[in-house]
Amino acid sequence: MHLSEQKKDAFVTEITPQSEDFSRWYLDVVRRAELADYSPVKGCMVIRPYGYAIWENIQRLLDGRFKATGHVNAYFPLFIPESLLMKEKEHVEGFAPQVAWVTRGGDEELEERLIVRPTSEVIVGTMYAKWVKSWRDLPVLINQWANVVRWEKVTRPFLRTTEFLWQEGHTAHETADEAEEETLKILALYKEFAERELAMPVVDGMKSDSEKFAGASHTFSIEALMGDGRALQAGTSHNLGQNFAKAFEIQFQGRDKTIQHAWTTSWGVSTRLIGALIMTHGDDSGLVLPPAVAPHQVVIVPIPRGNWKETVLPTCEAIRDQLTAIGVRVKLDATEENSPGWKYAEWELRGVPLRLEVGPKDIEKGAVFSARRDTREKASIPMAALTQRVPALLQAIQDNLFARALEFRQTHTSEAATWAEFAAAMEGRPGFVMANWCGSAACEATIKAETQATLRNIPMGSPRVEGRCVKCDGPSTVKAWFAKAY
Amino acid sequence: MHLSEQKKDAFVTEITPQSEDFSRWYLDVVRRAELADYSPVKGCMVIRPYGYAIWENIQRLLDGRFKATGHVNAYFPLFIPESLLMKEKEHVEGFAPQVAWVTRGGDEELEERLIVRPTSEVIVGTMYAKWVKSWRDLPVLINQWANVVRWEKVTRPFLRTTEFLWQEGHTAHETADEAEEETLKILALYKEFAERELAMPVVDGMKSDSEKFAGASHTFSIEALMGDGRALQAGTSHNLGQNFAKAFEIQFQGRDKTIQHAWTTSWGVSTRLIGALIMTHGDDSGLVLPPAVAPHQVVIVPIPRGNWKETVLPTCEAIRDQLTAIGVRVKLDATEENSPGWKYAEWELRGVPLRLEVGPKDIEKGAVFSARRDTREKASIPMAALTQRVPALLQAIQDNLFARALEFRQTHTSEAATWAEFAAAMEGRPGFVMANWCGSAACEATIKAETQATLRNIPMGSPRVEGRCVKCDGPSTVKAWFAKAY
Repeated sequence: MHLSEQKKDAFVTEITPQSEDFSRWYLDVVRRAELADYSPVKGCMVIRPYGYAIWENIQRLLDGRFKATGHVNAYFPLFIPESLLMKEKEHVEGFAPQVAWVTRGGDEELEERLIVRPTSEVIVGTMYAKWVKSWRDLPVLINQWANVVRWEKVTRPFLRTTEFLWQEGHTAHETADEAEEETLKILALYKEFAERELAMPVVDGMKSDSEKFAGASHTFSIEALMGDGRALQAGTSHNLGQNFAKAFEIQFQGRDKTIQHAWTTSWGVSTRLIGALIMTHGDDSGLVLPPAVAPHQVVIVPIPRGNWKETVLPTCEAIRDQLTAIGVRVKLDATEENSPGWKYAEWELRGVPLRLEVGPKDIEKGAVFSARRDTREKASIPMAALTQRVPALLQAIQDNLFARALEFRQTHTSEAATWAEFAAAMEGRPGFVMANWCGSAACEATIKAETQATLRNIPMGSPRVEGRCVKCDGPSTVKAWFAKAY
Repeated sequence: MHLSEQKKDAFVTEITPQSEDFSRWYLDVVRRAELADYSPVKGCMVIRPYGYAIWENIQRLLDGRFKATGHVNAYFPLFIPESLLMKEKEHVEGFAPQVAWVTRGGDEELEERLIVRPTSEVIVGTMYAKWVKSWRDLPVLINQWANVVRWEKVTRPFLRTTEFLWQEGHTAHETADEAEEETLKILALYKEFAERELAMPVVDGMKSDSEKFAGASHTFSIEALMGDGRALQAGTSHNLGQNFAKAFEIQFQGRDKTIQHAWTTSWGVSTRLIGALIMTHGDDSGLVLPPAVAPHQVVIVPIPRGNWKETVLPTCEAIRDQLTAIGVRVKLDATEENSPGWKYAEWELRGVPLRLEVGPKDIEKGAVFSARRDTREKASIPMAALTQRVPALLQAIQDNLFARALEFRQTHTSEAATWAEFAAAMEGRPGFVMANWCGSAACEATIKAETQATLRNIPMGSPRVEGRCVKCDGPSTVKAWFAKAY
């Protein structure tokens, strides 16, 4: 009866099935859902309005959390003089090979070359050294929303681009304990945000030394599992110890009157999260968006029968206004050039969580027809119940997406006790494999060389377990998450 | 009785009086109110949290207006290949001399140099050419919040810096009329925003050809008058005609099936508005912020007498929570190291619109003591009336700031009929001088050379008046606003 039942396949053939080529599927979804487009600048993408609207929701939800935990925003320069970059040894080694260099300004060669920021520790550190004089000036809790540039050879929209958007928090503290507390607080904030708002389960833990941020004392990360069984680093929180404070002379007079170096942290998530969303929830019909970050949570499609503009359309508008008034983000697609069937497929492809169809018969019955994007479940909803049922359905979709992704991760996580088991488990793209590790960078490198798997992180709060390293059979006290990763 | 009566002068001597040196006063306010700081990068500033919070309020209030008028946000690349910049002749002539050049990426010299965007017409135009195929794809109404770079020789925080933050709208339309309508709609939006939210009266009008945007068909602007009698361009809206559509081949099939070039516009305001705010409302005690964009609209200062932490402080916290609950942005300054008198001066310097002082005697009387930043009027407010009186006071302050600035502009606007009158009127920094102009660029240039005054704009909707050009005495049909400007 409803057009939902018509063959939709015709509309979505432009998207390669996931099972055929996941990577191709990803690029098809990015392009067809108009999330991003290639630009004439090598390695740089354009984030189109539909993709940017997701980013705006991510920003709003994260920014609220940062402010609720006492952080404020600021803005630091895009350019960094070469001499500043050189001040922290590990940092320069990590970043110098992948920066863009500005060598001319106006019609003059610059006396000192500038880099376009790949991250802002060095410029922030320079300013904190000016601002911090006494323990009373601490902590400094600043975040910045900005673009950064890292010269990449192989790029993929959202996942790895030469320029990307992110937030970078930079904090300075009086004691080592406070810096560690901040680092962990942000890690927990990222995890809660990813799981609640992106419906994306993540494992949180500490990076190995070889994967930590260049210049950090240690790095924590959250790692998500994508639909193809590869892991993706979704956010990092770095305890920088006193490394940057010493390099940039962030010093203060302590409570005991002695001059001390501050303890600093930095942390960030980026537009990469949009890539993570796509690959966590998407299916062969396209994008599936969690309601919390969907640009449109509900799409209303009028069924154009008879004098629908006088009958159906006003009802659709009234429903839109009702739902908008209670804070639901609603799109009414009343365009005339496309059929309802075309619209269903199009908005499914764009991942709108809930569709409402309104035709003359529905109105007679005082009801609208609803279709969930996640389960494709259909139901009739009495008009009088819409403002109750729609928010409840959106919550149910949000919860189901998380539950589904969590189940996927659980069924794609295994343990390996021996190297033979590990190597066998790492065939294909199995997801996470947990295994004991001795702590040596050499074993980590060999594991990567032989299986492509990297150590994602060492889980937080896991009990120290006596065991043998899966690679060298040496004594091991930690289990780590391994996976092939983006 | 109250500490308000104590000598405050001692606290603010760090700020140069406006009458002594307005330019020095401006820099003192920027520094002492912690709005911005110099960075180690030539010509680039750091926007500190207090300054950035003003920008966030500006962004929120403008972004809401853009969205309410059908615009969406997107993000375009920071870098632009040299060859793209070269496509629109006037545009390249206007911008090429002041761009930063990226010539190396990673460890390679680039085959084609990149510029760091000074504005994004050329990259946006390239993408619109890809996206627009049919009249059904129009209009495209996109805005971007971004950083841009213009290599400046002389810089001043907020007013002119090598890098600055802004929004740039870029729209494409089916007809010339629609593009003009959009250009004017945005101009009106900017004026309404500046006057309502920034309490800053502006004159709106069209730029002369020599002052229009490089590549535009024509440019409109809003111009404000600063406290030193100099004008400041506060926003521009450009009708680009078909210039960029032709250079970048933005073509579509029209309703009549013919292939046509689109009509485009662009428009922007920047962090310069923060400089404008400072110089419109500030006084010798520092910043005066309109409540609509003030980071803190109200500061509560507890009077620390007796066991104030058990008595006064809880009352202050309750007031803060009450006011916050009705949407007022409140700062409670309960720090112990500074005296109330110090706090009064400090928050006056930072321009907080309304101060509430709460001491044991106030509490006994069931009232708090209030002090307005704009008029310094003081009054006792019954606690029970706070949630009514505070919003009303904030509105009164907002209205008064606008009225005061408007009166200042009116008393600093004169008319000149002859060159002798004009030259005499332009002695010092008199504000706006209105005069007839023949339309010739030569007269405009001579006026500038002889008086430093530039033609700010030709007022909107002014009747065509028959007259004689103030400079050459030739026939003139328009009156224009002239001023010395930032």
